[in-house]
Amino acid sequence: MAVDLTPGPVAAELARRTARFVRDTVVPVEEANGGVLRSDDERRELQAAARAAGVFAPHVASEFGGHGLDMRDRAFVFEEAGYSLLGPLALNCAAPDEGNMHMLEAIATPAQKEQYLRPLATGGTRSCFAMTEPAPGAGSDASALTTKAVRVPGGWRIDGHKWFITGADGAGFAIVMARTSGAPGEAGGATMFLVDAGNPGMKIVRHIETLDESLFGGHAEMVFDNCVVPDDAVLGEVDEGFAYARVRLGPARATHCMRWLGIARRAQDIAVRRASTRELFGSRLAELGMAQQMIADNEIDIAAAHGLILQACADLDLGGPSGHSTSIAKTFCAEAVWRVVDRSLQICGALGVSGDVLLGRFLREVRPFRIYDGPSETHRWTIARRVVRRLDAEDAR
Amino acid sequence: MAVDLTPGPVAAELARRTARFVRDTVVPVEEANGGVLRSDDERRELQAAARAAGVFAPHVASEFGGHGLDMRDRAFVFEEAGYSLLGPLALNCAAPDEGNMHMLEAIATPAQKEQYLRPLATGGTRSCFAMTEPAPGAGSDASALTTKAVRVPGGWRIDGHKWFITGADGAGFAIVMARTSGAPGEAGGATMFLVDAGNPGMKIVRHIETLDESLFGGHAEMVFDNCVVPDDAVLGEVDEGFAYARVRLGPARATHCMRWLGIARRAQDIAVRRASTRELFGSRLAELGMAQQMIADNEIDIAAAHGLILQACADLDLGGPSGHSTSIAKTFCAEAVWRVVDRSLQICGALGVSGDVLLGRFLREVRPFRIYDGPSETHRWTIARRVVRRLDAEDAR
Amino acid sequence: MAVDLTPGPVAAELARRTARFVRDTVVPVEEANGGVLRSDDERRELQAAARAAGVFAPHVASEFGGHGLDMRDRAFVFEEAGYSLLGPLALNCAAPDEGNMHMLEAIATPAQKEQYLRPLATGGTRSCFAMTEPAPGAGSDASALTTKAVRVPGGWRIDGHKWFITGADGAGFAIVMARTSGAPGEAGGATMFLVDAGNPGMKIVRHIETLDESLFGGHAEMVFDNCVVPDDAVLGEVDEGFAYARVRLGPARATHCMRWLGIARRAQDIAVRRASTRELFGSRLAELGMAQQMIADNEIDIAAAHGLILQACADLDLGGPSGHSTSIAKTFCAEAVWRVVDRSLQICGALGVSGDVLLGRFLREVRPFRIYDGPSETHRWTIARRVVRRLDAEDAR
Amino acid sequence: MAVDLTPGPVAAELARRTARFVRDTVVPVEEANGGVLRSDDERRELQAAARAAGVFAPHVASEFGGHGLDMRDRAFVFEEAGYSLLGPLALNCAAPDEGNMHMLEAIATPAQKEQYLRPLATGGTRSCFAMTEPAPGAGSDASALTTKAVRVPGGWRIDGHKWFITGADGAGFAIVMARTSGAPGEAGGATMFLVDAGNPGMKIVRHIETLDESLFGGHAEMVFDNCVVPDDAVLGEVDEGFAYARVRLGPARATHCMRWLGIARRAQDIAVRRASTRELFGSRLAELGMAQQMIADNEIDIAAAHGLILQACADLDLGGPSGHSTSIAKTFCAEAVWRVVDRSLQICGALGVSGDVLLGRFLREVRPFRIYDGPSETHRWTIARRVVRRLDAEDAR
Repeated sequence: MAVDLTPGPVAAELARRTARFVRDTVVPVEEANGGVLRSDDERRELQAAARAAGVFAPHVASEFGGHGLDMRDRAFVFEEAGYSLLGPLALNCAAPDEGNMHMLEAIATPAQKEQYLRPLATGGTRSCFAMTEPAPGAGSDASALTTKAVRVPGGWRIDGHKWFITGADGAGFAIVMARTSGAPGEAGGATMFLVDAGNPGMKIVRHIETLDESLFGGHAEMVFDNCVVPDDAVLGEVDEGFAYARVRLGPARATHCMRWLGIARRAQDIAVRRASTRELFGSRLAELGMAQQMIADNEIDIAAAHGLILQACADLDLGGPSGHSTSIAKTFCAEAVWRVVDRSLQICGALGVSGDVLLGRFLREVRPFRIYDGPSETHRWTIARRVVRRLDAEDAR
Repeated sequence: MAVDLTPGPVAAELARRTARFVRDTVVPVEEANGGVLRSDDERRELQAAARAAGVFAPHVASEFGGHGLDMRDRAFVFEEAGYSLLGPLALNCAAPDEGNMHMLEAIATPAQKEQYLRPLATGGTRSCFAMTEPAPGAGSDASALTTKAVRVPGGWRIDGHKWFITGADGAGFAIVMARTSGAPGEAGGATMFLVDAGNPGMKIVRHIETLDESLFGGHAEMVFDNCVVPDDAVLGEVDEGFAYARVRLGPARATHCMRWLGIARRAQDIAVRRASTRELFGSRLAELGMAQQMIADNEIDIAAAHGLILQACADLDLGGPSGHSTSIAKTFCAEAVWRVVDRSLQICGALGVSGDVLLGRFLREVRPFRIYDGPSETHRWTIARRVVRRLDAEDAR
Repeated sequence: MAVDLTPGPVAAELARRTARFVRDTVVPVEEANGGVLRSDDERRELQAAARAAGVFAPHVASEFGGHGLDMRDRAFVFEEAGYSLLGPLALNCAAPDEGNMHMLEAIATPAQKEQYLRPLATGGTRSCFAMTEPAPGAGSDASALTTKAVRVPGGWRIDGHKWFITGADGAGFAIVMARTSGAPGEAGGATMFLVDAGNPGMKIVRHIETLDESLFGGHAEMVFDNCVVPDDAVLGEVDEGFAYARVRLGPARATHCMRWLGIARRAQDIAVRRASTRELFGSRLAELGMAQQMIADNEIDIAAAHGLILQACADLDLGGPSGHSTSIAKTFCAEAVWRVVDRSLQICGALGVSGDVLLGRFLREVRPFRIYDGPSETHRWTIARRVVRRLDAEDAR
Repeated sequence: MAVDLTPGPVAAELARRTARFVRDTVVPVEEANGGVLRSDDERRELQAAARAAGVFAPHVASEFGGHGLDMRDRAFVFEEAGYSLLGPLALNCAAPDEGNMHMLEAIATPAQKEQYLRPLATGGTRSCFAMTEPAPGAGSDASALTTKAVRVPGGWRIDGHKWFITGADGAGFAIVMARTSGAPGEAGGATMFLVDAGNPGMKIVRHIETLDESLFGGHAEMVFDNCVVPDDAVLGEVDEGFAYARVRLGPARATHCMRWLGIARRAQDIAVRRASTRELFGSRLAELGMAQQMIADNEIDIAAAHGLILQACADLDLGGPSGHSTSIAKTFCAEAVWRVVDRSLQICGALGVSGDVLLGRFLREVRPFRIYDGPSETHRWTIARRVVRRLDAEDAR
């Protein structure tokens, strides 16, 4: 009898190896660095170790050197990778590269795949995804896109202003979203461009200081000023950018959830270990009811988040509509992970806010997840509208 | 590619038929009766209709006239049955009969199956499960069991006091849990007995008035006073009652969740239909942000509950340990269903508290689910303890 | 040193007497009747007892036989009265009469006061306030008022449809809100009318079945069909009805909070007594952490609600703007009282949902308070808008 | 008519001046420094400005140069001071100095007041309060105190280990809590000692890295190793330290709440300003229901927190038991302030997690308040126990 809420045998073994690798190899590096890695050499070292452990690039097609897992199987492996802030980087499945690989696999030309996907998949380079703009540009509302690309002889000229571009600093190339028709507020007409680092029209104007700090390369504010690219820099079709963004965002949403759920599991383990050994008022902390309630609520949140991720993966793997289930998973996971880290920190008391454990760091890292990739409110808005439409459609039958 | 978060084809079709049957046939009866059925004739009529519709007894083995669904498949069908308060009764999969059938299938002798399971499975009779006792007896803490059974020539004599015995009034027989060794507070030594209605030693002393009223037959307080039963009234082995109770409780916990999740879906549909048509402050209610938030939170709660039910079912179907996942599912579902009904009522405003819709009734019916079958606090306590033990065990390796 | 978060000496003594009276005299009647009184004789009996105990009509001016307490002092007395579902009725300070007395004192002519206020204040009669209409009429949005009054020779003719008119059945008169100018959706132009019971144009068409049942006289659906009243039936000025409604609603909102906070205190006492005596898993329930958390959260909610009531009373007594603080108090109290009753019931387990204690009854009674008198969402909307305007105004300075 | 939920005229004027001063003078310094001041010169400059603005030392007796406000009046002024992370430092009413001044005023000898209180009150020096110890020492459970003081000729010798000693670095003196009789786990027998900076037996062994960073001087880990002090270093009576700690903690708890509530007001203002100007999906963000709900919930939390602070202040000013109301205020405020900052950040979206506004900083600063000064769980435990005892006492009468 097959009950496929469990991973297939290959993924199960890969998840086990990943768990071992992350605990033995990644966590020590993470703890020594307070969760934030800044040197590219250290990144390469971690990735070499992952390759040696046979856990590198679980999501990448085998022709590009990966394990070729489908979404459901990724859930089990990525949750293990996410057990450390640096685990996804080590396995080369961190944001934004992982989502970019996914999209390049889906829509790049063979030549683009060789030029961009292969070095990215092997860790030879990094990338960024330049979509978000400062208000009143594209943010929660993607259709507000203001960056423009216009045709010039032999290519395109991109002009615009982007911010919160994760990993831009040090990236070998950027995938840039620019409007090629229509006006801000209108859906139609965005195109994606591959822009190489070093293009004189693409500039990082500052590193945005943020509550979170562990995403490699940080978050940049960028200006595209007379940024000219050749025709073959177009990724996919002209004017199809919004559709491609959804191609990228659905799976990326699910994999964000997987990675952050790993941190929730880690936080819970730190708190439970503390509660198991700390004596208070004559009891083990783990035997006091209010601590037990927090531990149980963590466990429930983690299990529920995992279940929602699997449901989203099922929709993604089956290839049908997945916007509803990925929005639901993203909204719940972002808030559940936040609650779990917050409770775990509370269980640890003053130790929890100290740098002696990483819970304060985790709290900082997971808070933005309720905003990045669509704030919870935007997702709730789309969820509610879909529910209303679905019932209207049912009633019309 | 098989992603088994979806039902098998047989169950999918049965779920569709059940949905149709409940909406077309059961809901009108439910609405006409305010959600509470009191006449056994009406029960038989509904069950006849279910049989005619080919949806009767989805959980029962085919040799006893059912569809023989495993737990995972039940999830899809029972959630549809639960869309009406009377749906599970119509399909003969309501508590406590459904759980009793499950247990009889698992541990009764062939003769006991013919005598008790067959008429129960076909709707010819009803049953009850007499375990819970008033404080300080067996409640959240099963080991506090005080009802005693002692050997007498040719059988046993049972003496004790039970309450909250659902469906006792009108039941053809009771499965009675009594202590056969050890003292209250000690685990070992309970036995289950089959006691026929009409046994002069088994008396219903009152109907307990409760917030909920839709479980057929209500909740009785019972006294066992010199209640003598023959040797073959023993169900399973002597002194193995606590283990059997767990056999019953795991699946019963999951099926409670399925049924009540159906009511949550129904509440959401009522609220969304109202929000779609009600104009307020110049907008459709369904377009106001606070209503959208409630609708989205309902949808998230429903999806998360469904995911946890499936995870519990996977454990139950695979036959491994399932106490953890069923406790998690039960705790989350009981609270999620409560939240969904509460928000749905709020969306409907004054209409929501009126008898013109059934939301006030649903609120009354689902509230006790956070207490029946183990209060949330007891489940959280066991969940936390398992988490601590699991981590201790991992660390010991 | 004067810290006037405590009641004045007169009110303190009255609060003590009220507490004694409610516990000794009202609670036994309430428990014997399951919290719901239906006979007018019993109402008169309770009120006679309150008069004998010197606690009758704490809010009424002394010239009409009351104690003349200001809002702040009322808080302390009404919270004690509300300790039983029947306490406010006994003291003649229940909704809707108490709010009607308040408004009549404020705007009625001397003749109207003699004819309507005096018998109402002394318990000789009861009244109702006919404002709310079924959708799409006046509800959350008062300006949607559709009931119309037009001038006829010597008076007015009222036509319209009302529902959720509390206490209408058996009331000696109704205060009816009708549109006298403008159209639904426009603010201006409502007038209040005093309509005597027996007016052939005023009919109760049904009792609305509701989740709550303890407000004396229930909630009626009424039709005004060619309901003719004389000129002196106008209460206050023509077209000033919306302003008067606010006169009534501000204090009524605060006194609702006081009364329901009394029930929260009662629920907490019931739960704490149970937790003090119930043994579970070898401890007193009151010593288990999760129960302690619920008890503490109840206590915090009760204290916070009390503080918000006092702040609203301060604004009301000082005569300045009070809409913000009464909205805040109402929103918080309605939800806090609900949480307190819900937790108290949970602490009591199966007993809590049984009719052996009144917690299930309380749960049913307090749920609608989150909807009646403006749903929480409407209040939140007005609160948010005031906050934005306040900051805009500050920034403009 | 006096409704003393409003400040007296002197305090009202001082609160207005403080509000002006903080907005005009302190906030610019705060924003330029990211909320964290590290230089003592800058501290002295800010304090000089506060003195010039006539708002320095609102809580200090006039003989020591302050405004001599009672607790209730402090609430209004401290909430304004707390509007900036640096406001309390500027007014010399920040933790831990403010609490130390309070205690010195209450129990120091005249000579000790001249030597320690006067320079502290005027900002000439800073101080720290060395009570908390790493596990298993004094933390949530004060009676676990392990640091010991034993008599030596002419004085005492203190040995022990402390951590989370706020402001220790750069402090002119420490008030040190040490056990002078009894054993860890027993209540009786702590004494407070005044230890001058420079005492060779008192060493800061490290700065503890913490999530929060704005408390001036940070949090130190300290070792007392053969730390000898003279007899007149004893503060108050020998063995009365636990009682004095309560003298300090009650008011300190309330003033913590006031200060942090100021930050909640600030966060709300930042968010509301953003919501007023940000356009999203064709509306002002401030007109979208989910944003309005967050704004309203912030407002409700702020008002409820303020009311609880006033109730605690009333108890403190009246001199009766205040442990219950200060625990309630502390627990609610710590969580409410956290919720307000969290919602405010959410309203601001990506901007909210960036360093361009201080909300991420505020989030980091307020999180530990749910742990410092007794974690919420410890307070809930004491609150619940008091509720049980109070009802037991009532029932015994």
